[in-house]
Amino acid sequence: MKKNETAMTVLISGGSVLQHLPGGKVNVLENHDVLVQGDSISAVEPAGTMDRNIAKKIIDARGRLVMPGLINCHSHVPMVIFRGLAEDVSLDKWFNEYMWPLESNLQEEDVYWGMLLGLAEMIEAGVTTVADHYFFMDQAAEAVKSAGTRAALGWAMFGSQGPAIIDRTSEFITKWNGAAEGRITAWMAPHAPYTCDDVFLRAAAARAKELKVGIHIHAAETKGQTEASVKARGITPIRVLEETGILDSRALIAHAVGATEQDIEILRMHSSAVAHCPKTYLKLAMGTAPVVDFLKADVTVGLGTDGAVSNNTLDVWESMRLMAMTQKQAHEPEAMPMDQVLSVAGPGSAEAVGLKNGIGRIEPGMLADLIVVDLDGTHLQPMHSVKASLIYSVRASDVRTVVVNGNLLMEDRRLLTIDKQEVVKQVRQSMKRLSQRVPASRIQVYKP
Amino acid sequence: MKKNETAMTVLISGGSVLQHLPGGKVNVLENHDVLVQGDSISAVEPAGTMDRNIAKKIIDARGRLVMPGLINCHSHVPMVIFRGLAEDVSLDKWFNEYMWPLESNLQEEDVYWGMLLGLAEMIEAGVTTVADHYFFMDQAAEAVKSAGTRAALGWAMFGSQGPAIIDRTSEFITKWNGAAEGRITAWMAPHAPYTCDDVFLRAAAARAKELKVGIHIHAAETKGQTEASVKARGITPIRVLEETGILDSRALIAHAVGATEQDIEILRMHSSAVAHCPKTYLKLAMGTAPVVDFLKADVTVGLGTDGAVSNNTLDVWESMRLMAMTQKQAHEPEAMPMDQVLSVAGPGSAEAVGLKNGIGRIEPGMLADLIVVDLDGTHLQPMHSVKASLIYSVRASDVRTVVVNGNLLMEDRRLLTIDKQEVVKQVRQSMKRLSQRVPASRIQVYKP
Repeated sequence: MKKNETAMTVLISGGSVLQHLPGGKVNVLENHDVLVQGDSISAVEPAGTMDRNIAKKIIDARGRLVMPGLINCHSHVPMVIFRGLAEDVSLDKWFNEYMWPLESNLQEEDVYWGMLLGLAEMIEAGVTTVADHYFFMDQAAEAVKSAGTRAALGWAMFGSQGPAIIDRTSEFITKWNGAAEGRITAWMAPHAPYTCDDVFLRAAAARAKELKVGIHIHAAETKGQTEASVKARGITPIRVLEETGILDSRALIAHAVGATEQDIEILRMHSSAVAHCPKTYLKLAMGTAPVVDFLKADVTVGLGTDGAVSNNTLDVWESMRLMAMTQKQAHEPEAMPMDQVLSVAGPGSAEAVGLKNGIGRIEPGMLADLIVVDLDGTHLQPMHSVKASLIYSVRASDVRTVVVNGNLLMEDRRLLTIDKQEVVKQVRQSMKRLSQRVPASRIQVYKP
Repeated sequence: MKKNETAMTVLISGGSVLQHLPGGKVNVLENHDVLVQGDSISAVEPAGTMDRNIAKKIIDARGRLVMPGLINCHSHVPMVIFRGLAEDVSLDKWFNEYMWPLESNLQEEDVYWGMLLGLAEMIEAGVTTVADHYFFMDQAAEAVKSAGTRAALGWAMFGSQGPAIIDRTSEFITKWNGAAEGRITAWMAPHAPYTCDDVFLRAAAARAKELKVGIHIHAAETKGQTEASVKARGITPIRVLEETGILDSRALIAHAVGATEQDIEILRMHSSAVAHCPKTYLKLAMGTAPVVDFLKADVTVGLGTDGAVSNNTLDVWESMRLMAMTQKQAHEPEAMPMDQVLSVAGPGSAEAVGLKNGIGRIEPGMLADLIVVDLDGTHLQPMHSVKASLIYSVRASDVRTVVVNGNLLMEDRRLLTIDKQEVVKQVRQSMKRLSQRVPASRIQVYKP
């Protein structure tokens, strides 16, 4: 990654620091200073032991916690513009009568403003990186560039669009991979095995290999999809991904709720990662993902929110909490102990988006993607356990300050890179047009 | 209820208003004024149609929603002092190695400060009423009195304490029922059928009848408890409550996760209510409560948080969201549609705490227990659906202003009746003493 020349030297002073140790242990250092130079963390030392004069800016973190910025490993961020429009409906109605008809209203500029709105929401919630899977991604990339966050962007493709869309999204990849001071990576993003046939998947896989980029794709979203695939063609959706070469590149699989034991072994062998979005699974009754089994098998799991039409927010704190709670519910109260939950949120999610050596941990040499969380809220008192607070009590609104790539994006809840008023105004202007539903003009049909 | 002479006339102006219609329909009125006179709501009219001069205070609610204050139908509020001390443990360890040993450290003054801390947390989250079940309840009542909230207070009793505790808690009931301008109701509160034998339950039931108060009790917390009861004595815990006369008074049953079909019929016949605390059930893997079945059978359901050692907050928004999502998960995505969820949170919860004609709805003649919620947050934009926002996106921190019994308790997030700094200071002083665990000094043994 390129050095960020615009970032200044910042000392984040006197806070607690969440530390991810090798082997998955998580530690809370008390009363430490974190020094940010350029785009990176250069030191983490006991408070007061570093020369304060080298810092151009000092952020007082007393009573606060410095931790890695949260990573949203699967979303469709610009869908915030449709938030709240598809409630209390089944998964196939959600696609066929709501989402895909609504998306026929999409225009390029909607993606730009929707992306900015979602990025604002995420910065305010301490989410510094997002793996996004949507349309008109040049617009999304422009939004990320100006917002200052980090993103892994994939332009969603359906098989019905034919091979030309692979060329089009390859242009996007070539243009944006490594752009915005290295904050943007670009991914190949075929939608799912149930919307892309094998020929298309093979072509997408070959192109990703050629371009040396990862592949972000939905698969095995429910047990029903797995069963339908086995019935129709004799193999599971994960096997389809394996056979078509998708798993030969770095693969990020959204959901995999319906992964079988054998699928898990396939994911392990290919070092594929799973993005876990539990709020969607609850709301759409999609079943409980085998997260405990993924982790037991050493399959990387990252947290995601999915889009705001199922979620209905982009709040990764909530994803973390729901992951822990639904896994306990499905197994036993001892399942997913706190260190494991925090490891999924930190290093696990970093690995899922292909950045395990760059983000997800607060230590010297890592990129400076970090957040400062207020621990003084009434709902966190008294503070017997910082870890329990982070998983079960903290609210997105407790995030005070956000740094990405060494740059301040929010300070004491004031957004510094996004004009929220203007973004909301722009999005509201198109609300009426966006909320029209003409089922006949849906962009796809869900029939796995 | 007595008229509150200290409250002034307040006009809450120009907001949206959440309206609960007969039959469970929920409506959002736009651009309305709500007039509060004394302890009650005296008018809800289109904005600008009332004479503004009668109001001593005007609260600008433009871009905001006026709705009933949330009701927490089951908690152990002072347990906030132990928050975060019992994570990743089974239900029996939770009781035997954590909660009950920790509670042997309890002193009267801990309850006072813990209650105030929890009330501060709830006011900040828009929770205006709590049904609390704990120890040293004179202290809890003093805290409610000074904080200005509404509460249904029960002094928890174990059978092992013998009949004297029934006399002691009856004194509490006589002293506090109807106190604090009518804001406090007092309840008989035997702990559970697995900690109180039949003789004790019968005596408690008889006393409640004599005192004309309700009974707040835990029962059928898991399917395992139901099975253990059937095995040990041939009947379910709910049948035990029926046979011992507990259900002859207004009964508020915490949890009932393990209620059978026949139990549901018993609850219906006796007009007993269930307090639903889904976060505890998830974290302790207690199973999914049959909320859809309760509601189908016309059994009243109210939302609760349970104590902060299982929850780990007192956030009723989260209870509402988790109820909706876990019921969808257990049934189908169409289960618990939005109006039903909001009805449980409003009129349902009001009925569960015995106040259906007083609180839970914004309409003339109801008590003025209401909150003003900011709808402008980035995470709520664009606002296609107020109802979806309230259930799936709003955060406790979006609550701006809180009124109980016609009195302002929080204005623009500034607490007006509680000195938060002082409360936190007092609680922190005892943190070390409170966190000692000596399993041999547990106050009870969990062995249902």
